[in-house]
Amino acid sequence: MSVQCGIDAHVQAVTALKAEEAAMRYDHAALSNMSSDEASANTIFTRLRDAEVQSKWTKEGDLINFAGMDFYGAIKNGLGQPSDVWTAVRRMPKGALLHCHFDGTVDTKFLLEHAKRTENMCMKADMPLSTQEALWRATVEFLVLPQTAERSKVSIWSEDYVPGEWVSFKDARISFPYPHPYQMERAASELHMPNFINPSELNGRASRDGTHTEDRLDRGQAFDAYIHALMTLTPHDSIPAITNSKQAWARFQSTFVVIAGLIGYEPTLKAYTKELLRSHAQDGISYTETRINFLNEFMVRADGTPNLAHVEWVRIFIEAVEEVKAEISEGGYIDAKIIYTTVRFIDNEKLRWYLEDCIMLKKMFPEWIVGFDLVGHEDPLLPLKVYIPELLRFQQRCKEEGLSIPFVFHAGETLEDGGDADLNLYDAILLDTKRIGHGVSLARHPLLTDLVKERDICIEVCPISNQVLGYTASICSHPSLLALLHRNVPVALSSDDPSIFENFGLSYDFYQLIISSQSTTLVSLAALARRSIKYSLVDDKTKEIMFADWDRRWKAYIAWFLEEYGRWSKQ
Amino acid sequence: MSVQCGIDAHVQAVTALKAEEAAMRYDHAALSNMSSDEASANTIFTRLRDAEVQSKWTKEGDLINFAGMDFYGAIKNGLGQPSDVWTAVRRMPKGALLHCHFDGTVDTKFLLEHAKRTENMCMKADMPLSTQEALWRATVEFLVLPQTAERSKVSIWSEDYVPGEWVSFKDARISFPYPHPYQMERAASELHMPNFINPSELNGRASRDGTHTEDRLDRGQAFDAYIHALMTLTPHDSIPAITNSKQAWARFQSTFVVIAGLIGYEPTLKAYTKELLRSHAQDGISYTETRINFLNEFMVRADGTPNLAHVEWVRIFIEAVEEVKAEISEGGYIDAKIIYTTVRFIDNEKLRWYLEDCIMLKKMFPEWIVGFDLVGHEDPLLPLKVYIPELLRFQQRCKEEGLSIPFVFHAGETLEDGGDADLNLYDAILLDTKRIGHGVSLARHPLLTDLVKERDICIEVCPISNQVLGYTASICSHPSLLALLHRNVPVALSSDDPSIFENFGLSYDFYQLIISSQSTTLVSLAALARRSIKYSLVDDKTKEIMFADWDRRWKAYIAWFLEEYGRWSKQ
Repeated sequence: MSVQCGIDAHVQAVTALKAEEAAMRYDHAALSNMSSDEASANTIFTRLRDAEVQSKWTKEGDLINFAGMDFYGAIKNGLGQPSDVWTAVRRMPKGALLHCHFDGTVDTKFLLEHAKRTENMCMKADMPLSTQEALWRATVEFLVLPQTAERSKVSIWSEDYVPGEWVSFKDARISFPYPHPYQMERAASELHMPNFINPSELNGRASRDGTHTEDRLDRGQAFDAYIHALMTLTPHDSIPAITNSKQAWARFQSTFVVIAGLIGYEPTLKAYTKELLRSHAQDGISYTETRINFLNEFMVRADGTPNLAHVEWVRIFIEAVEEVKAEISEGGYIDAKIIYTTVRFIDNEKLRWYLEDCIMLKKMFPEWIVGFDLVGHEDPLLPLKVYIPELLRFQQRCKEEGLSIPFVFHAGETLEDGGDADLNLYDAILLDTKRIGHGVSLARHPLLTDLVKERDICIEVCPISNQVLGYTASICSHPSLLALLHRNVPVALSSDDPSIFENFGLSYDFYQLIISSQSTTLVSLAALARRSIKYSLVDDKTKEIMFADWDRRWKAYIAWFLEEYGRWSKQ
Repeated sequence: MSVQCGIDAHVQAVTALKAEEAAMRYDHAALSNMSSDEASANTIFTRLRDAEVQSKWTKEGDLINFAGMDFYGAIKNGLGQPSDVWTAVRRMPKGALLHCHFDGTVDTKFLLEHAKRTENMCMKADMPLSTQEALWRATVEFLVLPQTAERSKVSIWSEDYVPGEWVSFKDARISFPYPHPYQMERAASELHMPNFINPSELNGRASRDGTHTEDRLDRGQAFDAYIHALMTLTPHDSIPAITNSKQAWARFQSTFVVIAGLIGYEPTLKAYTKELLRSHAQDGISYTETRINFLNEFMVRADGTPNLAHVEWVRIFIEAVEEVKAEISEGGYIDAKIIYTTVRFIDNEKLRWYLEDCIMLKKMFPEWIVGFDLVGHEDPLLPLKVYIPELLRFQQRCKEEGLSIPFVFHAGETLEDGGDADLNLYDAILLDTKRIGHGVSLARHPLLTDLVKERDICIEVCPISNQVLGYTASICSHPSLLALLHRNVPVALSSDDPSIFENFGLSYDFYQLIISSQSTTLVSLAALARRSIKYSLVDDKTKEIMFADWDRRWKAYIAWFLEEYGRWSKQ
């Protein structure tokens, strides 16, 4: 064989091998059946993506940034600011968001705005917040109290504050004594929160010694930045950078404590639910399955009494969803359902109570409760195997009652290999989980990977969450995401807790995938979006409606895309 | 079915599924055929490991350390200092080290010691090293000059130094003007280099203003710490922490420039080769296939003339190996061979020259040249596909000449998905590579993963290297290591460039795996060690000898282990 023949044969063999492997991928069917418009858009999008990688992420001499880098680094480098790829990703119809925790989904600025308008919102801390150091060491909580309940008159910012005493939120806010600490400015300016606080405005209007004509306003803004920092993992100068998963979880868990009292109030709860749907609609998400944590028995009623029970939470949720559906039905399909969750530290006896509570709610609201899950930090908390007795009993009970409440378990959200959190995967699969939350360690399990595919179990992969919580340095080295996608294991990209990470909606996670993976195209993202509908927990008829709606949106999107970026086809 | 029956059935199903998956693993055969002594040792070792994880890596309240954490963090927490697991890992027979770069393998302290004793060793920099900042910005190089060659009399530490002029190494060393900079002390104390420099001694003997009775000695020690810092990636306060792969590679490449002039001198070359074998023997490594970079045509002869050619490098290598074999043959099998490498930035014409050079050396030293590879930073450098014409021609030439020089290509050492470095995997496999260096992105390729297994291609995975160079945050989230191991894809753990990372031998990489993975046992490590022999590039007869030698060592090791740790069997 001549050398040239040899070269040709090698090149052909490489091409054939690539094609054979590509045929195994999740996006193969979609790529094989593109309309000519889709094909044009796909080519143009790839061109835009490659250009944006070059111009924004891999600039000559830039040793800091790279495509798919850590989320907060990427934000600093302009992720989320207008760009061709960002605009195109943001606008695309994304189908269903299948993994998000209810109290961690909406921008925390929304909760702050509501707190400001809530007359009886109170605040407490477990130490006087009389030093800047205390600001970051204290556990800060909020709660709406009845009008008549006693509040401390001592400022929470004073040395004399008695730890644990409730003070007025409004008073605390306008007397925030750190109006211009450097940290606050940095926190605000780095947090890309233009609607919330404008740091240059803050600087411009404030004098050095803190006295100011509009003192109240500035103090309030600085307070807002402080509370915002307590509710997010967004880095700022006052707290050491997070370097591993343990540290990340310690701070992550502390944010929920702050959020709880702001969200757990009847009027806010309803407004929050509506905002969840509206913001998702804006991000191109038509349907959300949100995990509500029912661990606490009660939230606070509008009048301040703390006895708003689970059944009322669901009722409020439904009302909110129905109102938004009526409001924005013209824009296409919009809906949300509830996955009932409690936390993995309870015992079996307590679990039985929650499972019965879940059954009761399912009976009352059969269309709205679509699954059950146990949540929390998998590594230190109890493994699924501990709960087998009650979980099996629950399946039996559902059968008897003629109810369908599938499990959708978190499993394998861990760096451990062979530890309990990793082994949760076996139990989850054999308990007939319909989907798996995270599955970070799944791709290491050859048999389970095959089994998941065979049983058509969808993996809710949350790339930005996994990175922020220390399971991977960046989406590029994620232990499972691409390994599962390329094996055509069903995957639904998800945001997990965007309130806390600030990866709102699905655009950030979609962007990080498309910008970091050259093998991913616009049509690949579309295949993911369409697939997310397939693995939602609604009935087949509803799914058909959702598919039809998505197809219609997608067609409109392609038309928009070609109009907007068609000029790139000539290059 | 009663609930209890259901529980039993579930538990049995989980057990069966785990067993079925375990049967697919690389260590299954070894675990199924343990002698009773091996079984005892394995149980005890797991107990020791679990205890060490608890006592050293996951201490209550410790939010910094975790099992398998980043290498330099782990060193800070005592990795490499005596402990039960470290001692046991260090002592075990590890078979073959299949992936290490010759000029990046031996402790750089060894090179420094030799430089001190080399009369005509010279030093230059591309700027005067007259400020501490310049120390870390400059490119520093070494070279042995002929006795008669001119040296600058101006101190390299002075503002008047002319960039690029050679000065005496000895003079530069004893006049190092930063004897007590904080950075130096930190560098020394954090670098776990007790044989090299003792920082407390440095502190004790030195006065604040730098004057001192034994001034020369202290200055020399501080100089050594400085040069050591230039040759390693070990973090120190004078250089910002590395946060990604681009930064890591920029510094990584700079270390080789410093090392080149110290190692590229005939007497040092020989001593270095002997030290390589001796230090590997001490670490339980019987056989090393080292990649020598033949990019430069010449090194420096003993008399200072710079015309020591490739054929002489190989001759010196062989002499050194033979001398060490004669010296330590009692301790068991010991040997080393050469993989000929050049760098991925040359053109095809130049590559032909190297390939012919490789053929020439193979003809002269048929037992010693065992493979060919192209090295360098895969992301920015040329992909294999560029070199297809010459690589195929080489295969043809070898066939004609009746030579066996298999390819052992680096491929997939990248975070990119679908980029050239990732796609190198296709070319490498279809070019019949016998092994693959790194394969970080391999596990994302379902077809290639199967093909590699089918073709019995071994993956040389370098966990610590991959972490230090920014491809994974820790061994725990490595994108391929466990995924490949658990699929029984052949893997040989390797150290890559321990001179620069300071993960000397194989003990560090073995320790990081065993401490971070609960599914890994002592017998798993043994299976890896034995397998490394299988994938070495020696003939079958030699392999038989190596296997027999390893089996004998392993038996002795198990006996030692049970004597040393047998008391743990009672717990």
